[in-house]
Formats: sequence, C-alpha cells, structure tokens
Amino acid sequence: MRTSFLSDDTICAVATPSGMGAIAVVRISGPQAHEIVCRLFYQHDKPFPKEKIEGYRSYYGHIVIPDSSKEPETLDEVLVTFFVAPHSFTGEDSVEISVHGSLYVQQRLMELLVEQGARMAMPGEYTRRAFVNRKFDLAQAEAVADLIASQSEAEHRLAMNQLKGGFSQELRDLRSRLVEITSLIELELDFSEEDVEFADRSRLKALLQTTQDHIHRLTESFRLGNAIKNGVPVAIVGATNTGKSTLLNALLQEERAIVSDIAGTTRDSIEEVMNINGTLFRFIDTAGIRETDETIEKIGIERTFRKINEADIVLGLIDMTEGFEAMTEAARLILEKTDPKQQILVFLLNKSDRCPELGAESIDRLKNTVCESQSESSKHIYIQTLSAKTGKGLDQLRHTLEEIQQGRSAHQDTTLVSNVRHFEALNHASASLDAVRRGLEEGIPTDLVAQDLREALYYLGTITGEITTDEVLGSVFSRFCVGK
Amino acid sequence: MRTSFLSDDTICAVATPSGMGAIAVVRISGPQAHEIVCRLFYQHDKPFPKEKIEGYRSYYGHIVIPDSSKEPETLDEVLVTFFVAPHSFTGEDSVEISVHGSLYVQQRLMELLVEQGARMAMPGEYTRRAFVNRKFDLAQAEAVADLIASQSEAEHRLAMNQLKGGFSQELRDLRSRLVEITSLIELELDFSEEDVEFADRSRLKALLQTTQDHIHRLTESFRLGNAIKNGVPVAIVGATNTGKSTLLNALLQEERAIVSDIAGTTRDSIEEVMNINGTLFRFIDTAGIRETDETIEKIGIERTFRKINEADIVLGLIDMTEGFEAMTEAARLILEKTDPKQQILVFLLNKSDRCPELGAESIDRLKNTVCESQSESSKHIYIQTLSAKTGKGLDQLRHTLEEIQQGRSAHQDTTLVSNVRHFEALNHASASLDAVRRGLEEGIPTDLVAQDLREALYYLGTITGEITTDEVLGSVFSRFCVGK
Repeated sequence: MRTSFLSDDTICAVATPSGMGAIAVVRISGPQAHEIVCRLFYQHDKPFPKEKIEGYRSYYGHIVIPDSSKEPETLDEVLVTFFVAPHSFTGEDSVEISVHGSLYVQQRLMELLVEQGARMAMPGEYTRRAFVNRKFDLAQAEAVADLIASQSEAEHRLAMNQLKGGFSQELRDLRSRLVEITSLIELELDFSEEDVEFADRSRLKALLQTTQDHIHRLTESFRLGNAIKNGVPVAIVGATNTGKSTLLNALLQEERAIVSDIAGTTRDSIEEVMNINGTLFRFIDTAGIRETDETIEKIGIERTFRKINEADIVLGLIDMTEGFEAMTEAARLILEKTDPKQQILVFLLNKSDRCPELGAESIDRLKNTVCESQSESSKHIYIQTLSAKTGKGLDQLRHTLEEIQQGRSAHQDTTLVSNVRHFEALNHASASLDAVRRGLEEGIPTDLVAQDLREALYYLGTITGEITTDEVLGSVFSRFCVGK
Repeated sequence: MRTSFLSDDTICAVATPSGMGAIAVVRISGPQAHEIVCRLFYQHDKPFPKEKIEGYRSYYGHIVIPDSSKEPETLDEVLVTFFVAPHSFTGEDSVEISVHGSLYVQQRLMELLVEQGARMAMPGEYTRRAFVNRKFDLAQAEAVADLIASQSEAEHRLAMNQLKGGFSQELRDLRSRLVEITSLIELELDFSEEDVEFADRSRLKALLQTTQDHIHRLTESFRLGNAIKNGVPVAIVGATNTGKSTLLNALLQEERAIVSDIAGTTRDSIEEVMNINGTLFRFIDTAGIRETDETIEKIGIERTFRKINEADIVLGLIDMTEGFEAMTEAARLILEKTDPKQQILVFLLNKSDRCPELGAESIDRLKNTVCESQSESSKHIYIQTLSAKTGKGLDQLRHTLEEIQQGRSAHQDTTLVSNVRHFEALNHASASLDAVRRGLEEGIPTDLVAQDLREALYYLGTITGEITTDEVLGSVFSRFCVGK
C-alpha cells in the first residue's frame, strides 16, 4: 500500500531553471489550480471563464494584478496551458503559465498565486503527487530525477530505460514469482499437520534458484550502472616518475567537455570526471608504486592498491626509457595487483618521444612475457605506446577506453541497477532468500521460512514503492529540484 | 518601409534560462517548423501526423532519435505545443517543445533539430521575425527586452506600458500631425509661383508648436524614464567626515534586495544600486567637500559637483555635532551647488547619536536660515536628523526617498521615454522641427523647409521601425537573449 499524502491543497513553482531567459514556466497543480489561475488570467480584459477550460489547450492572454479599487494592471502577456485531471503529469487539475523570463515577473506571479491560495511547492512535490496518483512507481519517479541530472548519453539512456518501466516490470515478475513460492510453501504449511512429504518441493527449489539468479544478475549490474551514472572508475597507476599526472593533465586539456563538478562524485582532489564520446570516465590519479621500507610512503602505496580495487579499468604506466627488463618487471608488479575478473588493464608504455619506435613484435613479446606467469588469458590486457608529454597515443587510448566500455555495456538492453537504494534493497531481498533456501534445506519450520519470504517481498516492494514509508518518500523526493 | 529579412529558414533555440531545471522549453519557428518536429515527435510509437496539427494545442508524446538501421530510441517524454501561422509569437508556423530540464536532453534535442534542417537562432531572432511580420513595432520589440531584464516594479511597469503600445500610439499621432504640416507646406509650395500669401500660415505655426511641445515632453520624460530603468541617481554629498560612506553602508546592509550588478549601470566603484519598495535607487558616494587650495583634492571636489549635477536627488550630510552656525554654513555650501529645478535636496543632520535631540523648531529655523538667501521656495528641500551609525532615521530617509520618487512619477500614466535610442531620435526630430520653424520665420524657400520636415518624420519613423536599416535592427536585436 502507498501511504496517504496530503494533496487537497494546490501547489505552485517555477519549473524552469532559475535566472533570466526568454521565457519561464510556472506550474500550478491541485484541486484549486483552475480556479486560482482563472482569477488572474484575462482574455480581452475579462477573466478567463472556467467553463471554457479544455485540457491540453493553450490560450494567449494576460496575467493581471487584481485590485478591487481600480482596473487590474497587466503583469505580463502569457501563454496558459490547462490540464484536466487525471490527464496531467501529477494526475491532478493543473496549469502551466509561460511568462516572459524576467525575474521580477516570475517572482510577482508566484506572489499572486500564493495570494490567491496556492502554496509554494516543496522539492519533488509534483513527481510525488504523480507517484501518489499512480502515474508511475517509485523507481520511475527516481528515474525522472536521474534524467534531469543526466550529463552523458549513457547516463541518459540508463535513466530513460528506468523511466520507461523496464526495471519495474522485472521487479513485478520477481514479486509474482515470490508470491508463487509463498503460496507453495503455505500449501505445505497447511498440510504440515499431516506430516506428508510435499510433492512440489523440487519445483519450489527451482523457482527459488531462478529468482535468486535474477536478483543476482541485477545486483551484479550495479557496478556498471553505477559507473555509468558516476563515471567509469579508471585508476592511473605506475612507478614514481612514469608520467601519471602528466597523462591526467594531457587528457583534461584535450577534452573540451570536462565535467568538473558533479556533486558527490569527486571524493578526492585527484579524481577528475570527463566525458569521452558520451560516456563519463572518472580518472583516479594515484601515488607512485615502488619497493620501499619507508612507513609513510608504504601507506601511500597501500592506498594506491585500494584504488586499483575500486577501479573498473587500470591504466598501468611504464617508463619506456628504462629498457625491456625493467619494463617487464614494472608490468608484472602492476598485473599482480589487479583482479582479471574485475578489471581491465591497459599498459601504457610512456615517454615514447624519448625512445625509438617500438614495433608490434616487441609489444607482443612484452605482453607475452608479462602474461606467461598468469594462468589467465591476456584478453583483459591492452598495451600501447604513448607520449603523455606530446599527446601522441592519446587518441588511441581514448579509443581503447571507449571500446572497453562498449564491451562491458554490450548487455545494456537488459536492466542496469544504478540507484544505491535499489541495490541495497536487492541485497536485502537476496539475503532473505538465502535464509529461505537454508531453512528449506535444514528443515526449519515452514512458518519461519514463510516469514523470510515475506521479508524478501517487502524489500522488493520498497523499490517500486508498493511498500513505502514517509521517511523513504521524503528522502527520495528531496533529491528533486523545486518545480519537478 | 521595413527592410526585407531572410526568414525562409527555420530556427530553433532553448528559450528557458540555461541550466538544469524541472523543464526546459525549446522553440522552433519558420516554414519547416511543423515538418521538422513531426519527424522527431512520436505518439504511440508512430510519427505525429502533420495533418493532425491544431494551433494552440498541446500533445504528450516522445521525442525520438531517428535511426534508419533500427527502431528509433526515445530521447525524452515531452509536451509539444503547435502554433499555426499567423497565430504565433513570430507570425510563422512554430512549435514549443517542453522537455525534462536535463542539459544533455536540451543539447541533444537541439542537435536533432539541426540535423533535420533547422538552424540555431541568433539573439533576438524570434522577436525580429515578429517585428518583420508586423506583430509589433520596433519600440514594442525593445520593450520585450526591457521586460525580460526588468528587476523592479517601476521598471517592469515602464516596459509593460511600452509593450502595450501607448508610446507607439503617441508616435503615430506625432507623425500624422507632421504629415499634415507637410501637406500644408506643400500646398503653399504649389502656389508659390503665384506669390500669394498663404492663408493657413497661423494654423501651420500652431500645429508646429503643439508637435514640438509634445516631443519636448517626451524628451523631458527621459530623465525619469532612464532613472526608473537604471536607478534614480542619488548623490551623497557633504564635508569630509560627515558620515557619507557610513550612510551608504548602513543603507546597503539593511536592504536585503541589493541589486549589486546591473550590466552597464555601475559606472563607478562607489555606486550602488538598491531596490527600495519596488523602485531602483542608484546611490553615488562622493568625495568630501571642503575649502582647499590643494590641486588634487580640488579635482576630487570638482568631480563631486559634477556628480551632483547628474543626480535627481541629493542627500546633503551635515555633522550635527558642530553647532548651529557650522551646520548652516555647510547646508548653504551644498544648496549653492544644487539646481532646484533639477534636484531635490534632503539635508541629513547626521551623528544624532552624539547630540541632544533636535526639536522641530530648531530644524525649521535651520531650514529657514538656509533658504532665506534663496529666491526659490523651500518645497524642494527636506530635512531630518539621522544616525548613520545606529541606523536611527534610516526608515524615515527611505520613506522620504519613496515619497520624492512617487511625486516625480505622479504623471507616470503618460508615456515615459526610457530608451537612449528613442531619446536621441526624438532630439534629432526636435532639432529638425527647430529648423522648420526658423525656416518659416526667415522666409526660407518652402522646398528646403519641406526637406527638414521629412527629416523629422524620418527620425520619428526610426523609433517604431517604419523606417529602419539592417544596422539599426542588428543593434536593437543583439541586446536580446538567444531564444527570444
């Protein structure tokens, strides 16, 4: 069930970005929306008659400042579009007033609306009302916020897919499967007195397995979904003086579309997010790796190794000027610290401007030498020469990064989880299902097992908002801007 | 005649302020506007049929990214409002697309529109097209820009009146009177061969006089109109150490609605514009006045006197702690430098916190003593005590400023000229009419007089744009933002 939410009042807000522009749009929604606007909206020097309102129709006229003592004064020439419940974004009667984008006009119109009985909307209140009126579920409402905040093509597609309800459909499927499991178990419960072995136990187990696999696939997708939303984490690692910072600066200077300030993304002063051909990458510069006994430096290097763990792609810088042996050794050191299951490794043989050209053979030999100790195949390893100083090889690197990300996103037609709240709910549901499975294996009383199942259902329900609390709603909608 | 202007192409622009918001509005205008939008706008997975378009009607649907190789991808859920020529702002076929206010969506939609054949609009191009299509004249178009930029109630009212066409009507009246004069003179010209004294010469002179008076009233109104637009200039003057800067700071700190940066307004680092109850005041701090032989200081004081000339209101600060004689002397010095026809003078007896309360009688005596030397009445002089330090008397000062400005604006129902371009054109027209009058008086050949009359007509015509050049249009519309 959805918790009740007071919406017998009428709200108003400027829906366009704050500032001066050609036009600004003010939205009014609620039971009094039409009434209030008709008192202020004039056509041919007369108030617009409420009876004439048609949904999805725009009218040209004037907003006036009512004054009982004299002729009303015109505030602005406007375009007013009416929506009649339930055919509106919120599902309520609502109105959009398009005014000239003067700050004074925007402010004065808001004052007039409030004088006439509307109330300033809180952040996300329009979307919250749409949710309450079942225009969409909570996951879709969250997608609206993501859509507005989206800065890259991949991020936008992610939000759009979620908004279109693909994820919500999967969750409904999961829930209906859990309901089926519950009914199977409850059937067993009914017969438990008679102590009969239940026939469909194998069917129950199979269903449980499918459901868990499905949830597992969703939680696994969070790594990619989160990367798309906050930038694919790319660690730049290597020995001291291999040119890590030079590389970061070279990338930054060459990318015109630098995304410098994403709230909550940059957790560290040496992280930089940039948009390469529609995908956000989050580059993480690290302390140089080298063998040392010095305590403080050891801490820095330990931190570097942790950064490697967080990354999806590792750029391993190797100084070309130091000869084949040293290069092999440096590459091995980096390879040791990466997890081929989690990370893709790109070796960058840097300082090519100071060395003779390295042929494809030499590069292959290096790759083979480094990888021979590994049981893994080398398909997660890329290798190229580079001059971070002159910029030679940067285009190839960008191309490699795109290629890697495209490979990882190949399954993007399937749902990606990108919201931490959803990820956590799925993990909780998964843990409950683990308990169900253990319970069945260990012969725990089926009423306790049924309790775990209900918990799993509960957690899945919180994602789409079938089950929710004011607290959850408050935290979800406070992320929105006012006017949405 | 209006100069021709290429508008066989279709333009597009984001019309809402730049940035992220709940929604953003993209405008498309031109012969291809409907065609282009219908290729991108889908309802129920099908392109919106052009035949279904109705003006002033909004449609909910999706903007898609067309891709011949696969199903089109959805860019956003949108609300599209169509306008059918000539019933639109520009007078052309046009469309407004309301999208989710993500920067990515805005940018991508603009790209799609350009791919489909639209062109990015130049600043003011929508309004320029509206002007070309005779939706309004040039003075009204300029009022649109003023309306968008308006920051105070008075400024907004000024722009709104001009937009509603009151000024344009006055100019039409002026022009028709000039046309009448021209025809009277040309009649005389026809009969000149016969050397008859023309009967209606007195009627001609009376008409000329009325017209010049009217133009004169308009140019006179520029001082007030300009003050409303850029802030009423208020000079703060007084001897050194009377508390001028303390007063400015006190006013600034107490007014929450400080307008700190109006482009092109603040010509000096010691000018501050603030909004007092709906009116902008521009406070000008000046160098302290005192008798001096020192050259550099003299320059500063000369500058102060010039600032007094620019001001509409002069706040004369007088140190109360220096006794009645010194106060009288200081007040006289300030009074001497002001022009009672141009300026209103407010004496502020400052540092009241350090003096015994001054009774109404003492204040009257001071006022009378100061004014007795003046032939002028004292009705342009206000006087009050103040403590700039404690803030006592500030409310009274603000009230006085409002009262003064209300008195000056009492005739505000009549047109105020606030645009420098209009002011200059009116001055040119006035000069031409002076030449006409002199010509008639001095018996100059009437064909030369007729030439001066045509000049006056020309200048008036440039204001509303009956007569215009690409250069004038370019400079007028470059003041607009893109999307308007």
